[in-house]
Amino acid sequence: MNTQDKAAIASFKAQWLLAAVNRRGAPLSVEEQRSSFDEFFHIVPIADGCVVQEIRSEGPAGETIVPRGATPSRALLYFHGGGFFFGSLQSHRHLVSRLAVAAGVTAVSIDYRLAPEHPFPAALDDAVAAYRWLLTQGFPPGGIVLAGDSAGGNLAAATVLRIRDEGLPKPGGLYLISPWLDLTLSGESYEVRASQDPILTQETMREVAQLYLGQIDGQYPYASPAYGDLSGFPSIMIQVGADEVLLSESIVFARKAALHGVGVRLHVWPEMIHAWPLFHSALPQGIRAIAEAGLWIREALSLEP
Amino acid sequence: MNTQDKAAIASFKAQWLLAAVNRRGAPLSVEEQRSSFDEFFHIVPIADGCVVQEIRSEGPAGETIVPRGATPSRALLYFHGGGFFFGSLQSHRHLVSRLAVAAGVTAVSIDYRLAPEHPFPAALDDAVAAYRWLLTQGFPPGGIVLAGDSAGGNLAAATVLRIRDEGLPKPGGLYLISPWLDLTLSGESYEVRASQDPILTQETMREVAQLYLGQIDGQYPYASPAYGDLSGFPSIMIQVGADEVLLSESIVFARKAALHGVGVRLHVWPEMIHAWPLFHSALPQGIRAIAEAGLWIREALSLEP
Repeated sequence: MNTQDKAAIASFKAQWLLAAVNRRGAPLSVEEQRSSFDEFFHIVPIADGCVVQEIRSEGPAGETIVPRGATPSRALLYFHGGGFFFGSLQSHRHLVSRLAVAAGVTAVSIDYRLAPEHPFPAALDDAVAAYRWLLTQGFPPGGIVLAGDSAGGNLAAATVLRIRDEGLPKPGGLYLISPWLDLTLSGESYEVRASQDPILTQETMREVAQLYLGQIDGQYPYASPAYGDLSGFPSIMIQVGADEVLLSESIVFARKAALHGVGVRLHVWPEMIHAWPLFHSALPQGIRAIAEAGLWIREALSLEP
Repeated sequence: MNTQDKAAIASFKAQWLLAAVNRRGAPLSVEEQRSSFDEFFHIVPIADGCVVQEIRSEGPAGETIVPRGATPSRALLYFHGGGFFFGSLQSHRHLVSRLAVAAGVTAVSIDYRLAPEHPFPAALDDAVAAYRWLLTQGFPPGGIVLAGDSAGGNLAAATVLRIRDEGLPKPGGLYLISPWLDLTLSGESYEVRASQDPILTQETMREVAQLYLGQIDGQYPYASPAYGDLSGFPSIMIQVGADEVLLSESIVFARKAALHGVGVRLHVWPEMIHAWPLFHSALPQGIRAIAEAGLWIREALSLEP
């Protein structure tokens, strides 16, 4: 890593902390957190040459993002992050559009229901319904990669569990960015990487998990896929930062899948923080992660590089 | 994976088993195992455009493999596999030459001393000496990637431990193919993947470990880098098969390094067997693994893709 990269990270960390910190001396309301997050990303443009269209009629709440020259019958089914209670189509459109361009396929971004108004399993039900809908739209199951960052990675992974358990046909792959896979927060990285992580703490994550879980046990695999049986999973790619407290659960998940014979690519990026590809406009490593993900998605979809 | 790939794997597995099995009703001698392994790979040609040259004068026992247009001052320092008691420059020349071409750098392949004639730490001493020698030849430490397959991966990883502990300057990266990192054979994959692995068994590996270890405790980190403190390691790439009993130790190693903030790429290849890039002439996945390794080595050496 060169000096310029380091400066960009430092600058970004400062920006994030400024935006995330409570500037009023009292916790932000759920609504305020939602709007401040959307605003934070509002200035980042979507990728060139993409057509964004709301999904209509019988489809799920969400939008399609179609890059120029997108391969037909292939899709990236994307679930945004935000702790299950914030984040939106808007906050993640810039990232999802870049992933769509990098992979050369249509992205379908889902506006799933959020906690605390809609706790578990509302978001997961929406996610599974979105996959079922895609199958009715002429996308072959092997032509679909499920993906998401943070809580969206949880939804993508839990959806694959549900797909398998409900006997639906298997998708082509699962791509996860800094996924939140263990809502019991049992990972040792909560201790070991705590001093490196400028964004997440065990205390905050415990509160956020509670909003989503309600009365559900955090070890329930559909809520915490790290506790799931991962046999029969499609190929998995995980990008996670070495400097984030969610590191361990990615390793646990990779290990479980691999021991079932599943193809796994676990990329631990040095010095990177939670969901850094979201910050591609400031971080060259975000750009590189998106490019690599695009190549992997094409491979998972049996497309030429 | 398509039908052709599957057929190639099945064909290869049969070939390997034929070659590996004892055809005389009694164990092969060490010398017979060495020569049969060399013969098995004798027919595989080295990559086009490489110049192979024995290292002379004060250098280590070994050879340089220089591909056409190799980037100056960059090197892949390679240690062949073979359970510390077989394998040679000759058996691995075809693989090392292809890695050199894929990375576009000179490979330096080391003919370290073998067990049982030369038990631990003879091979490791030779490996560390080779790194020291490269530094005297004008290669900057960050311009060197250490690499190896199986027992050679052990040597590469243990050499990085020694480099750090002896205060030598840090290399640019560590690239491991199906590394044997835990000579105590504690990995759960010895149970979980046993029925998938056509080559290695816990029983055989225990005997082989004993030849190398002699009176040394298998948990000694220089003999089993999975037990080492991996802080300060350079970036690591690991390619391991989902169908080999050595799977777990790669995951353990990746986890330990990541929790120290080290950049790690762990690639678990579905359906692949121990050290499959050695079989690139029969397996398309071997070709692909070599190509990916080449790109990663270039990245670790700060070269353009």
